[in-house]
Amino acid sequence: MRLYVLVIALFTSLLQADLISPLPTDTKYDQKKALLGKKLFNDPRLSADDTISCASCHLLEDGGDDNIKFSFGINAQEGVINSPTVFNSRYNLSQFWDGRAQDLQAQASQPIHNPIEMGSNMDEVLSKLKKDPEYSVEFKSIYKDAITKENITDAIAEFEKALVTPNSKFDQYLRGDKTALNKEEKEGYKLFKENGCIACHNGINIGGNLYQKVGILKTYVDKKNTLGRYNVTKKEKDKYFFKVPTLRNIELTAPYLHDGSQKNLFDIVNFMTLYQIGMVPDKEEVKKIVSFLKTLTGETPKIMSINEK
Amino acid sequence: MRLYVLVIALFTSLLQADLISPLPTDTKYDQKKALLGKKLFNDPRLSADDTISCASCHLLEDGGDDNIKFSFGINAQEGVINSPTVFNSRYNLSQFWDGRAQDLQAQASQPIHNPIEMGSNMDEVLSKLKKDPEYSVEFKSIYKDAITKENITDAIAEFEKALVTPNSKFDQYLRGDKTALNKEEKEGYKLFKENGCIACHNGINIGGNLYQKVGILKTYVDKKNTLGRYNVTKKEKDKYFFKVPTLRNIELTAPYLHDGSQKNLFDIVNFMTLYQIGMVPDKEEVKKIVSFLKTLTGETPKIMSINEK
Repeated sequence: MRLYVLVIALFTSLLQADLISPLPTDTKYDQKKALLGKKLFNDPRLSADDTISCASCHLLEDGGDDNIKFSFGINAQEGVINSPTVFNSRYNLSQFWDGRAQDLQAQASQPIHNPIEMGSNMDEVLSKLKKDPEYSVEFKSIYKDAITKENITDAIAEFEKALVTPNSKFDQYLRGDKTALNKEEKEGYKLFKENGCIACHNGINIGGNLYQKVGILKTYVDKKNTLGRYNVTKKEKDKYFFKVPTLRNIELTAPYLHDGSQKNLFDIVNFMTLYQIGMVPDKEEVKKIVSFLKTLTGETPKIMSINEK
Repeated sequence: MRLYVLVIALFTSLLQADLISPLPTDTKYDQKKALLGKKLFNDPRLSADDTISCASCHLLEDGGDDNIKFSFGINAQEGVINSPTVFNSRYNLSQFWDGRAQDLQAQASQPIHNPIEMGSNMDEVLSKLKKDPEYSVEFKSIYKDAITKENITDAIAEFEKALVTPNSKFDQYLRGDKTALNKEEKEGYKLFKENGCIACHNGINIGGNLYQKVGILKTYVDKKNTLGRYNVTKKEKDKYFFKVPTLRNIELTAPYLHDGSQKNLFDIVNFMTLYQIGMVPDKEEVKKIVSFLKTLTGETPKIMSINEK
């Protein structure tokens, strides 16, 4: 068939091209706002009983998520979906697994209101933080209207914009240092392209750029029957669609999949091979892809070592 | 060869999946800031001789760019690269063809400083706009520090965030309305996937998500020897790399390519087939792909019909 001949020629040639771009090494953000946001990000007063901060589930020292299947909110309540990493989230088309927040600022207030996460609300948070004279001074020095609900989420979003992790081994490789990857890692990258992982995990964030069905070629329904994008659009065809997650720092963010069902990188690569590209996983190939995935770990964002004034 | 068998199986299956996601229909932005930004976007005082506004080259009634090869700046000076569309630019990984601005705010001041574009600078702009009592009042009502250089670009960026064009025929199709595309358009989309256009033009913006070489399979050097991404990174390997442009509203943004050398959609699809995927274009196929591309034209952003107070 003519199509297949074309497809082979094309695919072979596309394998020569890198469909992923490196992260910038000089991320731009408003430092004053971001440092205020850093403080808020780590502040448990954002939760009803002053126990849970953003950083409770998005551990900045450990991949930007926690390492459990579902996070725990106030009163030890268990969440229903795996916490995604906060790192490099500025490059996602939207926030949350189902994309229900269009940007980082819109995202920031939702866990505050979620009864099984922080169980609070922006009015309550505002009233608590207003009592803190340090915050008053800091907000006043940045925002015309000083401390407001909107400015709280704006500062958190600005901090998150600073959470970019550049200079992974793979980014160094993309920038031209062909020695940055070893033989096995290079073979893994080749397989990542050949096996079509790159069809969804591409662009600057190696994902985060579209919604895709979990279970394209083999039906997958998780134990909680999480409907994903359907919850936003209420369209039957969006059932089991989720935002394709970034693969940056993936080594640090186990367990995997929206339901946290895949314990390690081998499990998730096996799962993806089977459910997303409909192939029987080859042990040797999976090993190489895992080696490649481990080259996607970047540097700690500079803002994490800057102390607030 | 085993690889080819796999590739065929994989590619055939991938064709079933949509690697593009529709734009949101309810774009979120700060309306007060965005309306101020709209006024600034249309204000020729941003240029040295009060003749050129952002809207001079990014015509909002006509695809968000002008329809000439290179735009003209002050004193009828001709630019060196084709003006990209301002629509949906919030979804690009960076701004400008070479990605030298990380976000919309960083982008906004550069044409002001470019001697062959607006030929001014932010100090001059600030001093001119400060004399306008209307601006004084408006900025004061939004920003703590009233009118500043940073707040000028912040407001312009917020306006640009509102310039999203949802509900194209193709987005309706992606949302589940299979009648939104006719037979030829559907065949065009199939070819767009089969021929590998989708490898770079994917995600929410159908492009805008990575840098790629112009001339992957056939060398292309334009008349001005535009080096693209190399200008930012100074790495030999980045020569002739450009940000993959969004294909949204592509029907409205001729001429095409960074050098504006391709007059219409037929020309650019022929060019891409030859230079990017190394195939001889088939007239009938090109026609179908062009029909598909015309389904990517979205609705006029709501903010364009909102009048400033």
